[in-house]
Amino acid sequence: MQTISFARGIPGPDLLPIDVFGECARQAAARDGAIALNYGPPGGYPPLRGLIAERHGVDPGRVVVTNGSLQGFNFLARHAVSTSAKVFVEAPCYDRSLSILGRLGADAEAVPLGDDGLDVDALADALAGTEGPAVVYTIPTFQNPSGRTLSLANRRRLIELARASGATILEDDPYGLLRFEGEPLPTLFELADGEGVLFLTSFSKTVAPGIRVGYLILPEELVPAVEALVIENYVSPSIFVEAALYEFVTSGYFEPNLERVCGELRLRRDAMLGALARELPDGAAWSRPEGGYFLWLDLPGGVGAETLLAQASDAGVTFIKGADFYLGSGGEEAARLAFSFATAPEIEEGIRRLGTLVREAAAVAA
Amino acid sequence: MQTISFARGIPGPDLLPIDVFGECARQAAARDGAIALNYGPPGGYPPLRGLIAERHGVDPGRVVVTNGSLQGFNFLARHAVSTSAKVFVEAPCYDRSLSILGRLGADAEAVPLGDDGLDVDALADALAGTEGPAVVYTIPTFQNPSGRTLSLANRRRLIELARASGATILEDDPYGLLRFEGEPLPTLFELADGEGVLFLTSFSKTVAPGIRVGYLILPEELVPAVEALVIENYVSPSIFVEAALYEFVTSGYFEPNLERVCGELRLRRDAMLGALARELPDGAAWSRPEGGYFLWLDLPGGVGAETLLAQASDAGVTFIKGADFYLGSGGEEAARLAFSFATAPEIEEGIRRLGTLVREAAAVAA
Repeated sequence: MQTISFARGIPGPDLLPIDVFGECARQAAARDGAIALNYGPPGGYPPLRGLIAERHGVDPGRVVVTNGSLQGFNFLARHAVSTSAKVFVEAPCYDRSLSILGRLGADAEAVPLGDDGLDVDALADALAGTEGPAVVYTIPTFQNPSGRTLSLANRRRLIELARASGATILEDDPYGLLRFEGEPLPTLFELADGEGVLFLTSFSKTVAPGIRVGYLILPEELVPAVEALVIENYVSPSIFVEAALYEFVTSGYFEPNLERVCGELRLRRDAMLGALARELPDGAAWSRPEGGYFLWLDLPGGVGAETLLAQASDAGVTFIKGADFYLGSGGEEAARLAFSFATAPEIEEGIRRLGTLVREAAAVAA
Repeated sequence: MQTISFARGIPGPDLLPIDVFGECARQAAARDGAIALNYGPPGGYPPLRGLIAERHGVDPGRVVVTNGSLQGFNFLARHAVSTSAKVFVEAPCYDRSLSILGRLGADAEAVPLGDDGLDVDALADALAGTEGPAVVYTIPTFQNPSGRTLSLANRRRLIELARASGATILEDDPYGLLRFEGEPLPTLFELADGEGVLFLTSFSKTVAPGIRVGYLILPEELVPAVEALVIENYVSPSIFVEAALYEFVTSGYFEPNLERVCGELRLRRDAMLGALARELPDGAAWSRPEGGYFLWLDLPGGVGAETLLAQASDAGVTFIKGADFYLGSGGEEAARLAFSFATAPEIEEGIRRLGTLVREAAAVAA
């Protein structure tokens, strides 16, 4: 029996632009190989920086293109630690970010997440009790791991709150463009006119993770410190893949590819939502994301995710247990389900396997 | 007047495989795009790891392919610091490695370099006075910055010495294959049968820096710690460029490209050696590398490199002053000259400009 994975947030192979990306790389080398194949500036391939800057309405000097967005997060996390900033994270929070902050010895504190994203009231209380610099790390749109999205009203409140308290918002937005339903919301960066918000995103989910291209938009004064980290860590990012990506975007492939990816993700999400409704017993609840890769499953009371995961692995279906996304306790009866990798029929079969186990466990717990 | 740069160790555009690398990327996507465009293992694209492992006669699990070799150096430097190892560096030493060790707070100590590489007697004394774990960081072949090469006899002694004292050798070998004259020497890794030597190299000088691909060969027990750093820093390296590089090598482009690059570098080195002999006054001396990118210029007594560099920049020629490659004092009357970037006629003109300034300064100092 083939294991069906709802664990890793990675795209299925059918979501990758396999048929055109290689040709874009060939064209990039032909057009600008002498630049693309040599060392480049620490901030990345200048034409790509220019393109990104134009899209966000900022000066290209504020854009730092990194080897994937996690690399960018690392740099900002190190900066936060070196400036002794307190870092507020969401509960639940993206697990890799949590572990990076932990390893760096950051002073991190969790703020709960409600149905419409970060609990801004709880954050207000937490900020009120904070001395010195603070950073609020958030994935406001189709959050990893919860799939939840911060409402427009709360986006505005969050920005006001950060301004009033002098906190910096670190907005991580790898999923924002993967909306397949509902009205797009402005990013925090857009709402704040780029002031007080460090913006972080990736081409992993809109183009391909295997190219490892993400970027930061920073205040001008922070760029030299981040570029110094780039130089010391890897001299410059891969200029060749950035040139290929530039070719991909300027050849008009980005938007149609994104549209196709969103359509496929919607089918997968619908398959998962339908199967959850059919297979899960009373007491289970789940988020209903309008985009992105993930949904959050709250298991019926008394059904522990850790035990369930062990059983599920034996039964050929995997997920990430909720507790992995919490700084302290939390998420013990919850799971992150990624619908990005498996196909719709696989998702239905996977949820059927999971549902059987959850029903059994819920019956025992009752 | 166009400035002629002997400063950065980067290849001239004519040394890059511009005509074929893009096509290799296209073919890689066509052949294996579903793998190449997705996340991959932290150690890199498995077929490339396999190819590297075969070339070095090691298990593929010992190979970690990184986003350029400096990234790999960073991981090993962090490991050295976390195990409280004393790190011996060459004097002069590659400046980026020095600054990384400094920033990490490593316990570093310089060992002088003789005409035939690291002074093994001095190292023996230094190791004799060392308690606890020690790492010896060396670029034994066509060293950056000196262009010097450790002799075979001293390679053997270095390995014996490290074994006797329990020190680990960190061999950085980005230039070893760029030999255009003389007999190839075995790497320390080869001489030691891969025991007690951590090996670090790059495809930047043999293929192209813009792809940012280097690799480590490690003892099996060290691999999980380094892969954990990879995952935390950037999830996985760029699998797409690694697949393109794999295509480049398996299509038979690597060896002819290397031969062409060595031929071009030889012409440049010869142009520089010839011009130095014509233009530099008595009292100047320089290394005569049989490969690589650099030579080391000792200026006549009393001629300071810092003042000379300022004058040279005004006169349209640049280099890196020797002191930048020393942990403490040293190199004040020396310079690193890279012959990799400028063409042979540019090199002759650049050394002519430099020679005029050195003659003037030497006359004043006399």
